[in-house]
Amino acid sequence: MELLKQRILDEGRTIGEEIVKVDSFLNHQIDADLFMEIGKEFKRRFESEKITKLLTIEASGIAIATVAALTFGVPVVFAKKTQSRNLDKEVYSSKVYSFTKKMTYDVMVSKRYLNEDDHVLIIDDFLANGRAVLGLLDICRQAGATVEGAGIVIEKGFQEGGKILRDQGVHVESLAIVDRFKEGRITFL
Amino acid sequence: MELLKQRILDEGRTIGEEIVKVDSFLNHQIDADLFMEIGKEFKRRFESEKITKLLTIEASGIAIATVAALTFGVPVVFAKKTQSRNLDKEVYSSKVYSFTKKMTYDVMVSKRYLNEDDHVLIIDDFLANGRAVLGLLDICRQAGATVEGAGIVIEKGFQEGGKILRDQGVHVESLAIVDRFKEGRITFL
Repeated sequence: MELLKQRILDEGRTIGEEIVKVDSFLNHQIDADLFMEIGKEFKRRFESEKITKLLTIEASGIAIATVAALTFGVPVVFAKKTQSRNLDKEVYSSKVYSFTKKMTYDVMVSKRYLNEDDHVLIIDDFLANGRAVLGLLDICRQAGATVEGAGIVIEKGFQEGGKILRDQGVHVESLAIVDRFKEGRITFL
Repeated sequence: MELLKQRILDEGRTIGEEIVKVDSFLNHQIDADLFMEIGKEFKRRFESEKITKLLTIEASGIAIATVAALTFGVPVVFAKKTQSRNLDKEVYSSKVYSFTKKMTYDVMVSKRYLNEDDHVLIIDDFLANGRAVLGLLDICRQAGATVEGAGIVIEKGFQEGGKILRDQGVHVESLAIVDRFKEGRITFL
């Protein structure tokens, strides 16, 4: 997606060879109009699938999935990372390790909002090691839901997540796939 | 906002006298079309203010603010609750106590994304004790930004947050103000 790639080139800041900060438009400050274009692109790429629900994970995936839902015309469900008084007792749950935060956490989805009739498109902002998406796949498996694919905004092409998911037969569509940074320069695969 | 109140009456589930669960459309499963109407209503209520930025807090405020930003045509900034490798070192920070999660956490906004030229509308899904909004007000004060108001989806009229904020001169607009539940029945103030 050229519009997205140009924003990454213009505003992305690299740290070392593996971290790209895009917090000016994606995951701290948010450009909602760009998110609308991202949502339309996901719709185009999964045009032939019958999607009944978008599934994502808090926090930064929520905004992308919700704006995409305006185009898809289906509900969003976002997996929660912490047990709250307000979450149902009956949940699907999976453990996810975050390399960014260096901790394992439980992700949870209430059984009310995902079931065997659902055809799910997983949405997330980043795909690196793939742990978050694997957790969501596990939750869909528990629910008996059909996963139609995963729509990712930025995939780190030099990390294993994309390969792991595609090897499992998941239809992954990443709108920008970045290569390992060389001297702070971003290139796309 | 009648559309919202009707959804709360139709789908809200009360626990005791103080908790209303609206996770079928607001903060676990999300109805993006309803969020679009909520965003338009916020725009209508703050029509006369010059807003340059919507400020909210992760996680469930993000989706509402981002969809509202499509109508306002300004960026969203969401305060983060946990220190991450990806967050800038230079941040505004404030401590917030969560009654729902029974813990105090730091909320942080990078100094890059909020400054003295900003006219901020704070957006959040719930207003109860007001701690989250007070934290965001503190962050705006640190940034020298002007707070034009707070747009809230559901205010708990029987808790102190609304009074505290209005007593400080904050222009609070809540789209639904619920009273203490009697025998599980929801009424609006």
